[in-house]
Amino acid sequence: MTYRFRDLLALEPLSADELTFLLDQSKLFQEIQRHPLKKLATLRGKTVALAFFENSTRTRISFGTAASRLGADSMNLQAEASSLKKGESLLDTVHTLSAMKPDCLVMRHAASGAADFVARNLDIPVINAGDGTHEHPSQGLLDALTIRDRRGSIEKLRVTILGDIQHSRVARSNIHLLGKFGCQFMLCGPAMWVPKELEKIGPPGAAIRRVSRIEEGLEGADVIIVLRVQTERMYEPTLSAEEYILMYQLNAERLRRANPEAIILHPGPMNRGVEISPEVADGAQSCVLEQVTNGIAVRMALLFLLMSGSTEEAGNPMTGAESSAQAAAAEKKESTHAAD
Amino acid sequence: MTYRFRDLLALEPLSADELTFLLDQSKLFQEIQRHPLKKLATLRGKTVALAFFENSTRTRISFGTAASRLGADSMNLQAEASSLKKGESLLDTVHTLSAMKPDCLVMRHAASGAADFVARNLDIPVINAGDGTHEHPSQGLLDALTIRDRRGSIEKLRVTILGDIQHSRVARSNIHLLGKFGCQFMLCGPAMWVPKELEKIGPPGAAIRRVSRIEEGLEGADVIIVLRVQTERMYEPTLSAEEYILMYQLNAERLRRANPEAIILHPGPMNRGVEISPEVADGAQSCVLEQVTNGIAVRMALLFLLMSGSTEEAGNPMTGAESSAQAAAAEKKESTHAAD
Amino acid sequence: MTYRFRDLLALEPLSADELTFLLDQSKLFQEIQRHPLKKLATLRGKTVALAFFENSTRTRISFGTAASRLGADSMNLQAEASSLKKGESLLDTVHTLSAMKPDCLVMRHAASGAADFVARNLDIPVINAGDGTHEHPSQGLLDALTIRDRRGSIEKLRVTILGDIQHSRVARSNIHLLGKFGCQFMLCGPAMWVPKELEKIGPPGAAIRRVSRIEEGLEGADVIIVLRVQTERMYEPTLSAEEYILMYQLNAERLRRANPEAIILHPGPMNRGVEISPEVADGAQSCVLEQVTNGIAVRMALLFLLMSGSTEEAGNPMTGAESSAQAAAAEKKESTHAAD
Repeated sequence: MTYRFRDLLALEPLSADELTFLLDQSKLFQEIQRHPLKKLATLRGKTVALAFFENSTRTRISFGTAASRLGADSMNLQAEASSLKKGESLLDTVHTLSAMKPDCLVMRHAASGAADFVARNLDIPVINAGDGTHEHPSQGLLDALTIRDRRGSIEKLRVTILGDIQHSRVARSNIHLLGKFGCQFMLCGPAMWVPKELEKIGPPGAAIRRVSRIEEGLEGADVIIVLRVQTERMYEPTLSAEEYILMYQLNAERLRRANPEAIILHPGPMNRGVEISPEVADGAQSCVLEQVTNGIAVRMALLFLLMSGSTEEAGNPMTGAESSAQAAAAEKKESTHAAD
Repeated sequence: MTYRFRDLLALEPLSADELTFLLDQSKLFQEIQRHPLKKLATLRGKTVALAFFENSTRTRISFGTAASRLGADSMNLQAEASSLKKGESLLDTVHTLSAMKPDCLVMRHAASGAADFVARNLDIPVINAGDGTHEHPSQGLLDALTIRDRRGSIEKLRVTILGDIQHSRVARSNIHLLGKFGCQFMLCGPAMWVPKELEKIGPPGAAIRRVSRIEEGLEGADVIIVLRVQTERMYEPTLSAEEYILMYQLNAERLRRANPEAIILHPGPMNRGVEISPEVADGAQSCVLEQVTNGIAVRMALLFLLMSGSTEEAGNPMTGAESSAQAAAAEKKESTHAAD
Repeated sequence: MTYRFRDLLALEPLSADELTFLLDQSKLFQEIQRHPLKKLATLRGKTVALAFFENSTRTRISFGTAASRLGADSMNLQAEASSLKKGESLLDTVHTLSAMKPDCLVMRHAASGAADFVARNLDIPVINAGDGTHEHPSQGLLDALTIRDRRGSIEKLRVTILGDIQHSRVARSNIHLLGKFGCQFMLCGPAMWVPKELEKIGPPGAAIRRVSRIEEGLEGADVIIVLRVQTERMYEPTLSAEEYILMYQLNAERLRRANPEAIILHPGPMNRGVEISPEVADGAQSCVLEQVTNGIAVRMALLFLLMSGSTEEAGNPMTGAESSAQAAAAEKKESTHAAD
């Protein structure tokens, strides 16, 4: 099994086998996060361009740390400091970055489809780190990895997603991935955030139901994905923060409706006391910090698969023999570079 | 002698012996700043998280450079770009960072006690890079190292601190450290910046006097620590910049009151022509640039002590044999990682 | 041939031989951009300070990537986050950076002459990454490298520069360099941007003509350098964006006036549809992306020449034998550091 795409733009086009392959690869890199020395030489001499056209702290640091733990260097472009302010087009900006010869582009953008558009125009691998309300594939993978670790499997689970699903790329990536493993979805939130069209996203035949009462939404849930409430979308005449808390906050009492072994995910950053109560956020069922740790493993796996050249021969990136040979080759390359 | 704490949050709890140990360790790293190649492999494969919730240029670059000269990688979180803007709690932010598995957290925060609070909640070493008006321990150490180098000893000196002592974490760290070596302090500045309570900070029995006239404050001083005047605190009805210059600027004429071998420190950045005159700032008695160079040495020592695992066995981080064994181990680790 | 200066502040004082030497050195580093592994160990253990007191994305990333491909570490100071906001003087800021012992300072500043002023006050090499309307020497070099690659030579070309030449440090660096190789210049743009004094910049005897009609300006051109139009300078009563487009945009029709083999350069970021039409920007004659790739090569050459110690012995930085010896020395240095 290998990864057949050059890029990772969305989880939608991936098969269950391909998704399982990506999760299995991530598993290998998960172990490294427990080692006292977390750095590999696998991608030494390679460069990752991180282009964040939308604010992000954790995702940017996570990809940067993943790159650095693989031995790669990073180029950092952040929208605030970028040429975009000076009126340059998105394509010119990424072409310019690409002309500096990075080996991969990780990008976040406020427009749905931006990563896809860029990937069609560049000749290096592109990883979508979130595009508008479309997808956030590495988040979908890290969520699935976390669920698989805690529940043993991602097959046929009852998954409840709470909040502003309409505007959530995380929810879409979750549904595309988990839906391929026979999971059933309860989408729960205010009507304006859970419109009827959402029943049709997800793989063919995916069981997706919308409910407006949280008590009903949580009934028998195995996995609860709490979405971040964007305060800028909240203070509309129809919904105040207080009302949201009253009607949709996940708190200990409501949690009792779910399967007692239910686990809770949140893509972060959390608004404690708004979409999630502190006791639930810090409770034993919460996986929010495991998600963060798994994020690095997933991103190391993705960078490794897309950047290590011939993915066919890549094999286990951490097997002693293979990797030390790679390191030796990299070392040799470093010093005798211009001799070839 | 070893360092008995997991963190470095304040100088107040440290004994004179412990402080001497830290200064002696810093001395080892001071030499490296004079080498053409300044990079060690000591912390290769380790990561330092730099979380600055308050603006800082020099301290952040200093810690980042210290990390990189020890071979460690950095994660950079700056308040402007951080999740804090999105309403995440401080604890959630640092827990998130910590879940990415850095080996140490260096943090600056506008609230006194913030580093302490965070350290009690994390299981990795925390270095306080300045918390509100509480302490700035690495600054206290680098000041002491600078004084010891120039004066031969930090015992029983007459130390004058000039300026807004009330709001200065640097002054507090200086008094806690130097006070344990029998130094006497003259605190000199406008009454509202040098309140009576300050006489009681510092170790038991520390000789602390307040004076309002600068001429008296400088009399016989061995060390003069000039604090930065925060212009945002200055333009109160009671004190204008002009008045401050007139009454408290350290200039060449006033400097003659001090011991002729007196040295002058400033934590930077300086307001030239406000708290210090250009001729004094650039004069032979000024140590401001040595302070900056020593800052890297002190921070390398701290990162080394807190991050190199068993501090008991750490020994001299730069002894050829030991360090090359370490480097070799790191190298081996890098390539055979997943074999264990 | 060696580079006889400690710094690179401007192209004006360099002879044609010296410029040729710099271009030849850059040529060596150009090859690396095509290798799968682009990292050398040449400057391992060295640090480059990047001090950008004016916004820049591409130049900062370009220098940072150049440093990292040579194995050097970077310190990043950006004006927004810097002490300058706190009122520190430029000289104090760079002295502070310098006290952290970087091996080179790359700086950009809004004031013409700033790099020169700083270089006279520091004892490490300074590279001017753009100072006001004075010079941007690494841009001048990368433009010349691009022209030489495409046209075979930079001798006696007809060079047309379009736009706001008066405020352009890029135009000045281009004229100083290309003028020494017998190029003739047509400076073309609105009168207020192409004042009469410009005829006297450039090396003695340089053939510089001003024209206001673009059709005349492009007649027979071998090289067309399109400058970025600063919208903040454009909306004056005398000139709107629409008028500029009408009168001075380089489009396909106008391009036919030039030599059919003419090439087009732009320092970026481009205002597509303003100073350059999309078809021209993306056409076969456009070299804008080659310029970006060459920028890394030129900056690697500059950092190598200024930072590798004895430039006399430096030789070919990428010859297998020599460089692996250097790497071994660096490796040895890393581990046995304090033994000497």
